[in-house]
Parts: sequence; C-alpha cells; structure tokens
Amino acid sequence: MVDIATRVHNHNWKIDPIVRSLIDTDFYKLLMCQSIFRNKPETTVVFSLINRSSSVRLADLIDEGELREQLDHVRSLSLSRGESTWLRGNMFYGKRQMFRSDFMEWFEAMRLPPYHLERRDGQYELTFEGKWPEVMMWEIPALAVLMELRSRAVLKGMGKFELQVLYARAMTRLWEKIERLKALETLKIADFGTRRRHSFLWQDWCVQAMQEGLGSKFIGTSNCRIAMRRDIEAIGTNAHELPMVYSALATSDDELAQAPYQVLADWHEEHDGNLRIILPDTYGTEGFLRNAPDWLTTWTGIRIDSGDPAKGAETAIRWWRARGEDPTQKLVIFSDGLDVEKIEELHRQFHGRVKVSFGWGTMLTNDFRGLEDDRLAPFSLVCKAVSANGRPTVKLSDNPNKAMGPAEEIERYKRVFGVGDQAALEVTV
Amino acid sequence: MVDIATRVHNHNWKIDPIVRSLIDTDFYKLLMCQSIFRNKPETTVVFSLINRSSSVRLADLIDEGELREQLDHVRSLSLSRGESTWLRGNMFYGKRQMFRSDFMEWFEAMRLPPYHLERRDGQYELTFEGKWPEVMMWEIPALAVLMELRSRAVLKGMGKFELQVLYARAMTRLWEKIERLKALETLKIADFGTRRRHSFLWQDWCVQAMQEGLGSKFIGTSNCRIAMRRDIEAIGTNAHELPMVYSALATSDDELAQAPYQVLADWHEEHDGNLRIILPDTYGTEGFLRNAPDWLTTWTGIRIDSGDPAKGAETAIRWWRARGEDPTQKLVIFSDGLDVEKIEELHRQFHGRVKVSFGWGTMLTNDFRGLEDDRLAPFSLVCKAVSANGRPTVKLSDNPNKAMGPAEEIERYKRVFGVGDQAALEVTV
Repeated sequence: MVDIATRVHNHNWKIDPIVRSLIDTDFYKLLMCQSIFRNKPETTVVFSLINRSSSVRLADLIDEGELREQLDHVRSLSLSRGESTWLRGNMFYGKRQMFRSDFMEWFEAMRLPPYHLERRDGQYELTFEGKWPEVMMWEIPALAVLMELRSRAVLKGMGKFELQVLYARAMTRLWEKIERLKALETLKIADFGTRRRHSFLWQDWCVQAMQEGLGSKFIGTSNCRIAMRRDIEAIGTNAHELPMVYSALATSDDELAQAPYQVLADWHEEHDGNLRIILPDTYGTEGFLRNAPDWLTTWTGIRIDSGDPAKGAETAIRWWRARGEDPTQKLVIFSDGLDVEKIEELHRQFHGRVKVSFGWGTMLTNDFRGLEDDRLAPFSLVCKAVSANGRPTVKLSDNPNKAMGPAEEIERYKRVFGVGDQAALEVTV
Repeated sequence: MVDIATRVHNHNWKIDPIVRSLIDTDFYKLLMCQSIFRNKPETTVVFSLINRSSSVRLADLIDEGELREQLDHVRSLSLSRGESTWLRGNMFYGKRQMFRSDFMEWFEAMRLPPYHLERRDGQYELTFEGKWPEVMMWEIPALAVLMELRSRAVLKGMGKFELQVLYARAMTRLWEKIERLKALETLKIADFGTRRRHSFLWQDWCVQAMQEGLGSKFIGTSNCRIAMRRDIEAIGTNAHELPMVYSALATSDDELAQAPYQVLADWHEEHDGNLRIILPDTYGTEGFLRNAPDWLTTWTGIRIDSGDPAKGAETAIRWWRARGEDPTQKLVIFSDGLDVEKIEELHRQFHGRVKVSFGWGTMLTNDFRGLEDDRLAPFSLVCKAVSANGRPTVKLSDNPNKAMGPAEEIERYKRVFGVGDQAALEVTV
C-alpha cells in the first residue's frame, strides 16, 4: 500500500533539511555552552569556518543558494519539547539534572544568530559573530551542512543502483572494521563522528551498526539527537574553544599562562567523575602538565587529541606517576585521527596500563575513501573561535600543522607556554 | 508516517509466500507448455526433485511444515486477470499473440496438481505426477521454494545489520561483475537465474541492477513476473524436457533416434525467428548435429548448455559451414555454468564469428559464495521429468556427470545416439 499522504508530503518539501534539530550536535557543546552561559555569557566571539583541505573547492561544488537555504533552516530551529524533556530528565554519566533550569530556559528560547557568507577563491568564507553561548552552537550544524552538501553534490546524477552499491561498499567496509574491533577484549569505544560525517542518515546507520556489532564495547555517541533516537548514552566532555577563548581574554602574559587552568577550575566546580577529563594540548601537552596545579592530578583522565598519541599517553602516565597517582586508575581517551589499525595498536600498547577509551570520528562516519574516484573522501573542515572580545585566539596543539592564529600571537603563546620544537604530523581529517 | 493498515496487515501474514504468481516462472516453460498442450496433452509424467549436492542436507535445514505450507500456497495460485492480459497482449520476440486463445483459457483455469513429499537420508523426496502440461509447471516454483527456504534457514537468527551487510556484500559483488561486463562492446546478456535464485526479491534486485548497469546490453529476463513488473523482455525458448519425454514415449530404437528431431519439427511448425533455437546436447551434440535434417540448419541459432562451451560452439560453427550456412548470421546462446571470467572468455573467442548471447543463471542470482561460512553458496538442485507414461526418461548431455536415468537405458540411448567417450566436467551449480 502506498501511503498517499506521505508521498504528497514528500513531493512538497521545499528543501531536504540536513540539520533538523538543535541537539543534532555534539554533547560537549551543550556541556560547554552551560559552562559559558554561567561563567562568560557576555563574551563576544567570532567563529569561522576553515577548510584545511584547499583542494576541495567547496564553492565550486556547492550552490550558494542551497547553502543559504540550509543555514536559514538551521536558524529556524528551536529546542522541541521532547528534546528539552530528554535533556532535563536524562542521566548523563550517572548524574541526573546535569543541565540546570536557568540554562534550559535560556536554551529553549535560543535561536542561532545570523551568519555571514562570502565566496573567495573557490571557498566559502562563513563566519558567525555574537554572544559566545549562541555563536558556539553554530559549530556542529555549520560543519554538518557543508559536509553533507558536498556529499550530495558528488552523489547528484548517480543512478539508483550505483547509489545503492556505493552505500553497500561503505557498509561492508565499516562492518569489516567492526568485526576486527570486536576481537579486542576490553575495548571501549564511542562515536565522535558528527562533525565530519558523510550525512546524518549515514551517521545514524554507523551508530546502529556499532551497537549491533560491538554490544557493550560500544559506549555511546557524541551526537545528542542520535543518542535520544536510539536510546544510547551521549558522550563528551570539553574542547579547545574554552582555553582558546579564555586565553584570548587574558590581559597579561601572567593571566595568559593561567588561563587554561582557569578553564579547568571553572569546570572542576561544575562537574565530577567522568566529566573531569583534561584536554592538555591546546598550548602543548608537555608544558601544560609540567605547570599544572596539583588538584588536576586527581581528575579522572586525559584526552589525547593531537600529536603522536602513544607519546601523549606515555607523557600522561609519567606525569601521573611523578605526582603520586596510579595510572591504572586513570582514563586515557584517544580521539585524534583514529582508524582500526591505530585503535588496535593503541589498545595493545595501553590496555592494562591505564583505562583506555576511544572517540572514533571521521573514519567511522565518513570513510568513503577510494569510492567514486575519491570525490567523497573526507576532508579537513573545522569551525573555530577566531576572536573573543575583538582579540585573536590562538591554538598551538601538539602538531604545528594544526596551529591557528596570527603569527606574532603564536610566537607570544609559544614563549608564554614554553613550547619548544614540535614534530609536524600530516593532518588528513 | 507509519501506514498503520500496512503494518497490521504485515503482522497478520500466515506465511510469507515465496512464489506468489503462476508466472513467477521461466518464459520457456510457458512456450513449452503451450506446445505440449497442443501436441501431447494426455501424456502422464512424473517430475522429481533431485539435489545433486548431497552435502546440503535440505531436510535437516528446512522444516517440513514450512515446506508444505509453501507448496500448498503454490497450489492455491491461479493466473490473475492482469497476468493473463499481459500474456495475451504482449509482444514476445517481435510477435503478437504468441499464446493462443485455447491455451490461455486452459491456463486461466489451471491449478497445480498435488505433490508427494517424503524425507529420506536428510533429503526431501518431492515428486509430482499427472498430466504433462500441469505437472511441468511445478518445476520452477518447486525449485524456487526449496532454494529460498534454504536461504531463509541460514539467515534465521542473523542480526539486522549483519543481514544488511550480507546483502551489501552480495550487491557489491554483483555490481563489480556488471562493471566488468559493461566493458564488453557487443555484449548481449539475459537473466536465466530464476531456478537457482537466492530469493525472489534478490532476483528482482539483480535484474534491475543489470538494467541500470548494462543498459541495452541487458536483453531481458527468463522470469515472466519480473519481466511484467519491470516492463522488460521475457526471454527463453525450450529445454531438455521435450526431447526427454518424446524419447521416453518412443516404442522402438528407430523412433527413439528420431524423437529429438520430432520435438523440433513440432516446434518448427509453431515458431519462427529467435524462437528457433536448437538445444542439441540432450543425447550428445556431435551425433545430434551429424544426423540432423537439413531444415534444422536454417534455424536461427543454438544453445550450448553442457560440456565445454567453446568446444560446443566450434562444433556448431563447423556444422553450419559444412551445411552451407554462414555462421556469422547464426546465434550462439551460452547458458551453462557462466560467470564473468567465462563470459569474457567466450565473448572474446566468438564475437564477430557468430552472433553471441548469454543466459546467465546461478552466478547472477545466487552468488553468495564465501558469505556466512559458505552456508549460502548455491547448490545443484534440479526438478526433472523422470518418467512418461510409465517409461523412464534419460538424459545424457555433453557431460556424463549430468546424465540421468536407469543405467541400462543410458546404455541403450548411448548406443542409439552413437555417443562415444565424453569428458566429465564438475557440476557445481
């Protein structure tokens, strides 16, 4: 039986919206948003889209009108009653009412602020300016819209069976990865792939495949909408934007040197348990840990998000030992540039020595490499805070190829944070 | 929107019928049925299911109750008005009204006769006895039911994503074959895979994939229901059952020697053009062609269905030349044990020398080799006429491993048809 109403409805879509919910975003954005809403609500920031893969000429691939329609649609979204209920009522990391009432009321009324879009040299310049708690919520939808419009541009004109076989190949590839991961006895792995996903429906498929294939080894997804839809755990902690903006706001070198610790001091007040995860690499992991206050050593774990991951984990283990902590009681979350080989290797090297967990991103939700002449291969798109209250932000990371900010500010930060030589690693995704 | 009625309906299915139409069968069964209905309507035959792959223990895999339900369902089927209209109104091989009114009236009233089912040594003994025009229509549904029940038995208990990935792998495999076949400039290929299909829906998918992938190189399907549904050409001519039954009915060695030619003389009266295709191998191709009457050399082509196919085609070419015919104007249809490599090889060897066409069966609609520990790999199931008016049938073919019938009758046939040494080839499917 054809459901006539559904069919007529489908033919009347003005657009096929890519982002259909304000919680189709990473869980840590909500946690950080609440923290910012409490601690720095009046900060004015600019977020900007940066395509680190200049060979992917987005403005040649994606129609500007379609891009504007999708972004306008995102601006029309507001938190639904069911989403609000889910956020208010859910238990996250074993804790109820993680989101406070004043934040939820603000969030329910929130709409995303305007965007500014220009084309230049085959790329889109997309920026967002306004109050930090609102602007920061643009990051994930903006990335998701551009990633999926790029996918659609490549898929356009393919036949029905060609399309089906394309997805059949991608499904087979992911399933083979899952079958390998299943063999890792003590594996704990989560989906961190929202920002670089091929499409929403594909991410949703990947998450369900992980659920069926890995069972309890799959510990959740960073995507709140999928977590809600599929009744699984939402996963996430915090990101570089907090130390980047706090640091940009610092008015002296001394304040700058303390800024990353101030972020975690604010976080310490709000959260405990599995949410107390150190992200140490914004201005170099070595210096960050060397100068860290003692209370940070009691935190639950650390997230390794740039540089050589094994080296980062060894640094953390040495640091915990030096500060009298037992590394076997600590959590190390690997979240940068993971694919099966790397996961197997890191798991082999660290399981038993620390608690290991993986946040698997791009190669989970967007491994279309080699399909359609590589025109669907993932690329390195980010959306970052570039200034706060008019002052530029800086990121150094443990990989100089991931550094961001004006050259003279980068030099100043390197001096203040005592960052020496760093090994450059290729940034693929 | 969930279509509630559909969902409720789906939950109320007593069974999920495998064969849902009397024309979910090979087109040549209908052509032969009409011929039999005209020439030998009162012949009593026994058809029997034979599983040449004894390692596949069907009675251990398939529940007898389920098998009976499916066979009973097939017996409840009758030709629908739309199917009758399609058969009456369609143009087959450029000819309108291929099916005569008296045959169509009989077919509209026809129901399949009873079956006889027993279990023995892990296998089912399934036989059908009655008037030839009715009993012969059991062949394809009986094979389809057993093939698909075996698939279902293996698939039972698999998870949703495991299933999806299984089909993803099978789809990818077929698509890669299609991509290779696409490269063959003058290819003409048809689906002959009904009898050994993994399932109805899978065959339907394969046919559509061939349509999209090969365009006009895909010339049709042997399956009438799929041809009707997908609005493509139904393809087929005639099969071994005609010479087998005609030969069994012969009352002397002289009559026996003429029986295979009598089949084609009856056919000659009914059909012309692309339906005049010789199937020469029932009692050995060499002898059949050597003793053939001259009018057979004017036929359109030949179908090579056993033995070494290149050798069979060379024999035909030599025969045409010796009888003053131009082989480049003749059609050679290869239909035995084909897969991509063999198709490429035969195409390379014969295109330009004759008109070449392929009837691709098992490896089109049932290539699940290597998936699920090979438990879905195709196997060699046939349903054949084993006697006519109480006398046993015999098949020799060009491959002694495909021979059928009582040993002493096989010896007699070999003598009458002058069949010498034959090369034994493995029968896989």
